[in-house]
Amino acid sequence: MRPAPLDLAPIRLEVEGRIDGFLTNKARTAEASGMPCELAEVLRAFVSAGGKRLRPVLCVIGWQAAGGMGTSDSVLQTAASLEMFHAFALIHDDVMDRSAARRGVATVHRALAARHLGGRTQAAAERLGASCAILAGDLALAWSDEMLHTAGLRPAQLAAVLPFVDAMRTEVVYGQYLDLVAAERRTGDVDLALQIAHYKTAKYTCERPLHIGAALGGAPPALMDTLSAYAIPLGEAFQLRDDLLGVFGHPEAMGKSNLDDLREGKHTALLAVALQGAVPGQRDALCRMLTGHASLSEVEAARIRALLGDARTTVEEMISTRHRASLNALAFVPIAPAAADALRTLADQVAWRTS
Amino acid sequence: MRPAPLDLAPIRLEVEGRIDGFLTNKARTAEASGMPCELAEVLRAFVSAGGKRLRPVLCVIGWQAAGGMGTSDSVLQTAASLEMFHAFALIHDDVMDRSAARRGVATVHRALAARHLGGRTQAAAERLGASCAILAGDLALAWSDEMLHTAGLRPAQLAAVLPFVDAMRTEVVYGQYLDLVAAERRTGDVDLALQIAHYKTAKYTCERPLHIGAALGGAPPALMDTLSAYAIPLGEAFQLRDDLLGVFGHPEAMGKSNLDDLREGKHTALLAVALQGAVPGQRDALCRMLTGHASLSEVEAARIRALLGDARTTVEEMISTRHRASLNALAFVPIAPAAADALRTLADQVAWRTS
Repeated sequence: MRPAPLDLAPIRLEVEGRIDGFLTNKARTAEASGMPCELAEVLRAFVSAGGKRLRPVLCVIGWQAAGGMGTSDSVLQTAASLEMFHAFALIHDDVMDRSAARRGVATVHRALAARHLGGRTQAAAERLGASCAILAGDLALAWSDEMLHTAGLRPAQLAAVLPFVDAMRTEVVYGQYLDLVAAERRTGDVDLALQIAHYKTAKYTCERPLHIGAALGGAPPALMDTLSAYAIPLGEAFQLRDDLLGVFGHPEAMGKSNLDDLREGKHTALLAVALQGAVPGQRDALCRMLTGHASLSEVEAARIRALLGDARTTVEEMISTRHRASLNALAFVPIAPAAADALRTLADQVAWRTS
Repeated sequence: MRPAPLDLAPIRLEVEGRIDGFLTNKARTAEASGMPCELAEVLRAFVSAGGKRLRPVLCVIGWQAAGGMGTSDSVLQTAASLEMFHAFALIHDDVMDRSAARRGVATVHRALAARHLGGRTQAAAERLGASCAILAGDLALAWSDEMLHTAGLRPAQLAAVLPFVDAMRTEVVYGQYLDLVAAERRTGDVDLALQIAHYKTAKYTCERPLHIGAALGGAPPALMDTLSAYAIPLGEAFQLRDDLLGVFGHPEAMGKSNLDDLREGKHTALLAVALQGAVPGQRDALCRMLTGHASLSEVEAARIRALLGDARTTVEEMISTRHRASLNALAFVPIAPAAADALRTLADQVAWRTS
């Protein structure tokens, strides 16, 4: 029996409201001083188009795990700054991956290309769109910082939080770098795929948001370690689920294509497992199909999916193992019960999500 | 008679040493934890390849203008964080402009493309190089922040500095956005060119570094205003000189091509003045030549330069006017004499530089 989902909706709404207010204010200030308000508006549309708000939710739960009661203005604002940071990461990722859609709408570089099409060739507009999206991402990064240090944290809180924020930023960029460099290299290197997941997702998406919230609440090192023991396997499960959804998921539920990963030739654990388990003849066939070309058709994708059946089963088992490890980490240490309950619920949601 | 240049070399050396130490440490930490050290190494090579270090120098002078004596660890570290931020801005600018060289060496995206060429087509390596350079810039931005908040500033100092840092970051991105969107639009709009220079250079390069240093020293609003009155015209002069050097400068002295601006069709004040002053027939000829194409030859560039003679004279006058305004701002207010002296020297260097 799975526990009924905890109501995290109010936290999500609070976070969304804060980002919306911040960006509305930025757009107004820009307009009032004769500066372009488009970038703030595009960011606002991007953030409001959706998202799981997993990082802010984990930040608030981390705060409660460390004994913080309920929420507070400064905790919610810190949580919101993580969602703004995430906007930065997604916008730049989409430029690098040349993705067309995200959250069911055009990616930021596509939206900006469309906005600047007038009087330009398509190619010039696309190039300008990519450049403007780099700037939109840069702003989101700078503004996540501004949200953090205008959150009204006490100096001691800020000092406790910043090392975790710094670590998070560095780790996610390193993870993305490994991901980029590994793409288009067809190997059965499952460890490399898991290393990428470790930095790009496990630490960035799960561990650091919890640490940041817990640091706000003055958590001792032992609690930080427990949160890591919970977050790292859960984050790996999150990425493994992402890999499965990226190939087998429903585009409408996800708001993005289930062909992109195959088209990019992304080095996922799923593909590494498949290549590792294949006999030489199969391996060559898979490698040929997975050379990562932009024009991969639905028919070709269906053929690849048929070859990934065994790997899919293996990855489902890897997710289950990690999900259990994550829950086990919470079994033997004292964490505020409401926080522990929320973490268990989230673990189920993250491991078994369909979008 | 121009005053003899003040010895700002020790500040530059200190700043360079701090960035070098910071990045060496990042590369070592990455390697020790199995993460890629290339990005830290590429950043280190980029920063050490050269640069005027104008922003850190102005930051230290701002601190002295507010009564700060000499230098201090935390002031130098803050100054160094501005140079790290500048690395971010340049690396992303070069990706957007597709520039080949900077500071006499390959740009970061070119260097990273070369590093990842093995086994890839040239086009795939170039695309990967651009993506990796986006990440290198992202790291430089995140790390400039880390340098700032590990500078050992007192909480009150940090609180005084952050609003100026936030303003600077937003302004430079807005300025670059205006610049991008204005490029390839051939007009005689001198005001637009000056508005771009205002945000991208005057505020970012001159005013904000002075403000940040002065804020460290607890400067009152009146001093901030004086520093603005000095910095804004000087920054405009800096950009106008940049426009002239970008077309008429010596590539070897500058470490970059004097064809890039013409090839990009950059909307500079120089070109706007030329278009504004041209009779209709000339204007059409200039517009045709300035459509911004990547293959512009030396011969074509020489023809354009010949048509820009009058505009060049006008821009030299604009520089002189701004240089005088900048010096006048220092004439009637009490600023620590050593700082005022340094500001006068810098004004001369900035306005009449040849690289």
